Amino acid sequence: MKPFDFQPRTRIVFGDGSSARLGELASSLGFQRTLLVADPGLVDAGHVTQATLCLQRAGIAVAGFHDFDANPTSAMVEAGRVVAAGAAVDSIVALGGGSSLDCAKGINFVLTNGGRIGDYRGFGKASHPMLPAIGVPTTAGTGSEAQSYAIISDAGTHAKMACGDPKAAFSIAILDPVLTLTLPTRVTAVAGYDALSHAVEAYVTTRRTAISELFAHDAWRLLDLHFERVLDAPADVAARGAMLLGAHYAGIAIEQSMLGAAHACANPLTARYGTLHGLAIAVMLPHVIRWNAALVGGRYAELLATTQAAPSPVANPADAGERLASRLEQLARIGGLPATLGELGVAEHDLPALAEDAASQWTGTFNPRAFDAAAALTLYKDAWGIRGSEKSF
Amino acid sequence: MKPFDFQPRTRIVFGDGSSARLGELASSLGFQRTLLVADPGLVDAGHVTQATLCLQRAGIAVAGFHDFDANPTSAMVEAGRVVAAGAAVDSIVALGGGSSLDCAKGINFVLTNGGRIGDYRGFGKASHPMLPAIGVPTTAGTGSEAQSYAIISDAGTHAKMACGDPKAAFSIAILDPVLTLTLPTRVTAVAGYDALSHAVEAYVTTRRTAISELFAHDAWRLLDLHFERVLDAPADVAARGAMLLGAHYAGIAIEQSMLGAAHACANPLTARYGTLHGLAIAVMLPHVIRWNAALVGGRYAELLATTQAAPSPVANPADAGERLASRLEQLARIGGLPATLGELGVAEHDLPALAEDAASQWTGTFNPRAFDAAAALTLYKDAWGIRGSEKSF
Repeated sequence: MKPFDFQPRTRIVFGDGSSARLGELASSLGFQRTLLVADPGLVDAGHVTQATLCLQRAGIAVAGFHDFDANPTSAMVEAGRVVAAGAAVDSIVALGGGSSLDCAKGINFVLTNGGRIGDYRGFGKASHPMLPAIGVPTTAGTGSEAQSYAIISDAGTHAKMACGDPKAAFSIAILDPVLTLTLPTRVTAVAGYDALSHAVEAYVTTRRTAISELFAHDAWRLLDLHFERVLDAPADVAARGAMLLGAHYAGIAIEQSMLGAAHACANPLTARYGTLHGLAIAVMLPHVIRWNAALVGGRYAELLATTQAAPSPVANPADAGERLASRLEQLARIGGLPATLGELGVAEHDLPALAEDAASQWTGTFNPRAFDAAAALTLYKDAWGIRGSEKSF
Repeated sequence: MKPFDFQPRTRIVFGDGSSARLGELASSLGFQRTLLVADPGLVDAGHVTQATLCLQRAGIAVAGFHDFDANPTSAMVEAGRVVAAGAAVDSIVALGGGSSLDCAKGINFVLTNGGRIGDYRGFGKASHPMLPAIGVPTTAGTGSEAQSYAIISDAGTHAKMACGDPKAAFSIAILDPVLTLTLPTRVTAVAGYDALSHAVEAYVTTRRTAISELFAHDAWRLLDLHFERVLDAPADVAARGAMLLGAHYAGIAIEQSMLGAAHACANPLTARYGTLHGLAIAVMLPHVIRWNAALVGGRYAELLATTQAAPSPVANPADAGERLASRLEQLARIGGLPATLGELGVAEHDLPALAEDAASQWTGTFNPRAFDAAAALTLYKDAWGIRGSEKSF
């Protein structure tokens, strides 16, 4: 068995209504003046008011920061730092989707260790202690609350920077399915699909270990079994809980195993076209699965066996890849997500440049099949206008 | 989904030869003068010399404590405290099976918080900080290195006391399969069976949560698939690794879910007859499974489906219970473990008193089927001289 080193840093507090414990839990960590990082949508939804009251009832002063959007940039992180420094906070609470959680981690880096967020690209570059933080996800998606990485875009180049440090991990993740009940269908679908991709990619990377396999496998089980249900019945709190936990488990798996070629191909689409991450993933993942299947088809078959009553035994690796890819295309259709690069407005003549960009993504180095610009171009061409599910099977 | 609160406290460093990192890892936690708690067998096997040298090379002074046996008592814990206090240690390293790990935790309680170990019976009674500790298991059994409980016997009454506190958890567990290669066959069998029982009992308790189910389920998979192999081929390091990781996962599961009636029935046998824990478990577990099956047969079927190619579908809960019980009786036979209370030298007229004792065990309160003295008597009678596997099936 492959060696591994697993240092869990985040306490998980899971349960319907568990976000009502925010004040008490923050108090238990000694929070007195906290920065509440939450995107503007959560202010409108009333969640910020509730969280603020909950913290204040526990005697904690709250400074809010909401001036950022879906892809937090280095400039937004700097704006948050100014608010945090002004309020002399001793802690951070992040409430929202991946953007809120990543933005909060980014602010923590520059507030406690100085400089600019770009200085922390990579892993372990923060030399000073960081503030204790609580993450409260309101989407079942990135699993950022389980990770020590912040994904921040460079305000100038739009390049995504992964900035990680053990000290950036949340002390507590509060997983309250009730917070996800009112998500718009589209957000449920896009975030949920991203979580599915994390489970699938993490399950097969070159860095996978026994512990990442354990969490990725159960993440897949929870997500594949409940993705359709939360779209059909958004108020089904048990299904919402399964999705939230699945997304969190996938986040734990990524922390050990990293991701693969689907994320390497998706990032350049976001950087060049501003494509929403989950949409780019929906288009690329099935093609990556088919392309990887020669090497990890047996592992894809394990995922299928967990959740899909097999109509026939999986005959060979390519068959497993085709079936898993088809399943993911089916889930994308159910979620109303695009299937081709054409639908994303990608121009065919951009593909070579996108492929060069994809080949330079760190995450691609962990893909089970060696990934370079030629591979990326093949995958982009597959995804450009050809609906995989319409291929003969 | 049921709410849960999961605070992992122990970093897992898994890998063949990973125990060579003991000095480096102890240094990283700031150890300067440490108490090395290891049972006398490990001194004879040379493991203690190796560990001591490894720590000394990292500049750490080592005081050894080895004066305890398979069931550490309150008196042995006190003897260890005297050694630790005399050496003014700042940390503890526990090397060995469950007795070494539990004894080390026990010493940590009384050294840092005063009084006697009995004062810490229950959970969370240590008000002062405890010393940082590293656990290095040399058996795949109790999973004590994953837990914040020390099981210590009262030197007077022989009653087992479970003393738990979050601060008693090891900071790091080093899981090195190589350390288990030279275990005597009998120890491999007894410890491995205990680990199997942890997985099975933890998977069905009333306290089970999504996260304890995840770890208990994978523990069962690893243990059931490799128990026979490590007995047949003791030097198969991959199989040894699977057992060591399985035992650890079961330990993580117990920390959330606790155990059940098999442990409640086993403890009085150890207290009254000095029966080795794993032997008492081997005799009781199959009967508890049959008795629980009416309530949790579906969950037993899940375990069977994971590792046993089903010759026929599991028709009903009792069927699943019978099949899982038979599988565990088969494993006990493979391990040369006893099948009846008669073989353990239990006198039939002791059964009512044993049943009273069993009913008072804390662990019985988490069994999925309500457990009392009448239930315990039924189970003891089943286990007294009747070989379950010879029943018609």
